[in-house]
Amino acid sequence: MRIHVQNPANDPHFAVTEAQWRDAVSRSPDMAGLQVSFASDEEGLTRALPEAEVLLSWVRPLRQRFPVGALPAAAPRLRIIACTSAGVDSAAPFDWLPESIALLNNSGTHADKAGEFGIMAILMLNTGMPAFADAQRRGEWKPIFASTLAGRRVVIVGMGSLGGGVARQARAFGMQVIGVRNGPEPHPDCDETHTTGALDSVLPRAEFLVLACPLTDQTRNLLSRERIALLPRGAGIVNIARGAVWDQDAVCDALEAGHLGGCVTDVAVPEPLPTESRLWRTPGMVVTPHVSADDRARYNDRTLDILFENIRALRESRPLPNRVDPAKGY
Amino acid sequence: MRIHVQNPANDPHFAVTEAQWRDAVSRSPDMAGLQVSFASDEEGLTRALPEAEVLLSWVRPLRQRFPVGALPAAAPRLRIIACTSAGVDSAAPFDWLPESIALLNNSGTHADKAGEFGIMAILMLNTGMPAFADAQRRGEWKPIFASTLAGRRVVIVGMGSLGGGVARQARAFGMQVIGVRNGPEPHPDCDETHTTGALDSVLPRAEFLVLACPLTDQTRNLLSRERIALLPRGAGIVNIARGAVWDQDAVCDALEAGHLGGCVTDVAVPEPLPTESRLWRTPGMVVTPHVSADDRARYNDRTLDILFENIRALRESRPLPNRVDPAKGY
Repeated sequence: MRIHVQNPANDPHFAVTEAQWRDAVSRSPDMAGLQVSFASDEEGLTRALPEAEVLLSWVRPLRQRFPVGALPAAAPRLRIIACTSAGVDSAAPFDWLPESIALLNNSGTHADKAGEFGIMAILMLNTGMPAFADAQRRGEWKPIFASTLAGRRVVIVGMGSLGGGVARQARAFGMQVIGVRNGPEPHPDCDETHTTGALDSVLPRAEFLVLACPLTDQTRNLLSRERIALLPRGAGIVNIARGAVWDQDAVCDALEAGHLGGCVTDVAVPEPLPTESRLWRTPGMVVTPHVSADDRARYNDRTLDILFENIRALRESRPLPNRVDPAKGY
Repeated sequence: MRIHVQNPANDPHFAVTEAQWRDAVSRSPDMAGLQVSFASDEEGLTRALPEAEVLLSWVRPLRQRFPVGALPAAAPRLRIIACTSAGVDSAAPFDWLPESIALLNNSGTHADKAGEFGIMAILMLNTGMPAFADAQRRGEWKPIFASTLAGRRVVIVGMGSLGGGVARQARAFGMQVIGVRNGPEPHPDCDETHTTGALDSVLPRAEFLVLACPLTDQTRNLLSRERIALLPRGAGIVNIARGAVWDQDAVCDALEAGHLGGCVTDVAVPEPLPTESRLWRTPGMVVTPHVSADDRARYNDRTLDILFENIRALRESRPLPNRVDPAKGY
């Protein structure tokens, strides 16, 4: 089986190396027969596509690279496109993707790192760090005393790899965890789970709200101005989903009005966030530059392990665990 | 037995209320016979002292209130002075304290809260939050990708209630925990423990350093300029001890020189820290206003539970678990 790894052209941090490939194969000896090629330029991709059965690629170039209808002729043997990111929203709509090709996300790579980022953000909100950061800018010593997290309530929207990672950590700190997801099935790290349709009834109970869902047509502007108003006064929000999942301006307004206690966001509209954006300067808003889920030391190792799991499933004619449903968008 | 609770005059947050007292007695029915008085003014204290056998008090006023030699006459029946803080450095030297009176600290009240603050601070340093805070002030989107904490090494100086709380959390995140303490005895949440005398050999191994020791003559300037130089380049420091335990200016210099990766300090010299202090403005320095160990919701409950444990020990002629050794200073 022929696999082509198309690395990003200008991002040495996350390029999959031949050494990482060899290590991954040594962890999965059943993958020893795979024939692999690597490239980070256009010519390398063009050269590999006619023979490739599996393409591992950065998600962003996919839609531009493959206009609607072009893929079958360009890559006649392709059966899997595996994306290195968990969110595949930048490749939507999926009209360019033939039904015969399975699109895989990289869900599972990010759980541990996202869980640590999520609990850090919740601890920061609980401790009052956004207010202390504002006070530090003014040189003002102004204690606010906080309790511990045990028994406090967090609502997590999106119970995939990211949300699940946060739920596991929140549980370890003794929090009461309420998960919100599309399906009604319970989650082992949630005390309660509710469907997205019940969101309005859950928000008034959220001391902390974590957004960790994929960006789809259904989740765009999910945390609207109206829904922000449903949160109790003083609530804290963590956004590790996408900037378009909340109404960014309404969040800033709610912080300025004192309705929200603080926010930690790792995502923004647009990214990179321009210097003049009000997000940087809104009191109570902590901004990080889309780093919450990417563990540089372990990212590629996990990416390859997940890819191999899916190839194994393909060989054994099982459903591919990371297959994206183009209709759902995740 | 007569107990007097002297509450701070100007701090309603931490005043012990009669309701909290009643709840504590209901948790410890063997304390039902205690006679208790409350005051927050000087007259109330003066009125109570002649009969009081136990005094529960804020630590700060003790030295000023009781000049050397004054206590036996002022409080002839006093057997215990219980402080509401874990650190009793502001009452040192203990020349005002007769040997017949046991001074108790409040060690144990702070473990859970300090543990959460400590792991938050370590997660922040690992994630690069001090650099992101600086970047946010400039409106600059500049990703730095970090790994998870598993397998990373933290050195904790001071393995009392605060340090023990941080060690427990660090362990839960899979960190390698090295404890430094006066005695050689191992600690259940440390992979290694070393005596303070071995500090110089341990510092070069510290990816993260947590200062959680009491301030005594031995620990003043413990993290000196010379010892800061022993830390590996890029190390992060958390100070939840006292500002005088490190060389505050040398820490700022090391941050400016890029030798240290970042700091989170909850303590400063002096407190409250004046607006003009360079600590507020040193890049990579996160300052919080002495809030790391005080859990407002549970503080007084735990304080009373600990006091009752010590009274129980006195009744049963056991050593008092929270007794301060004036020679050691903690």
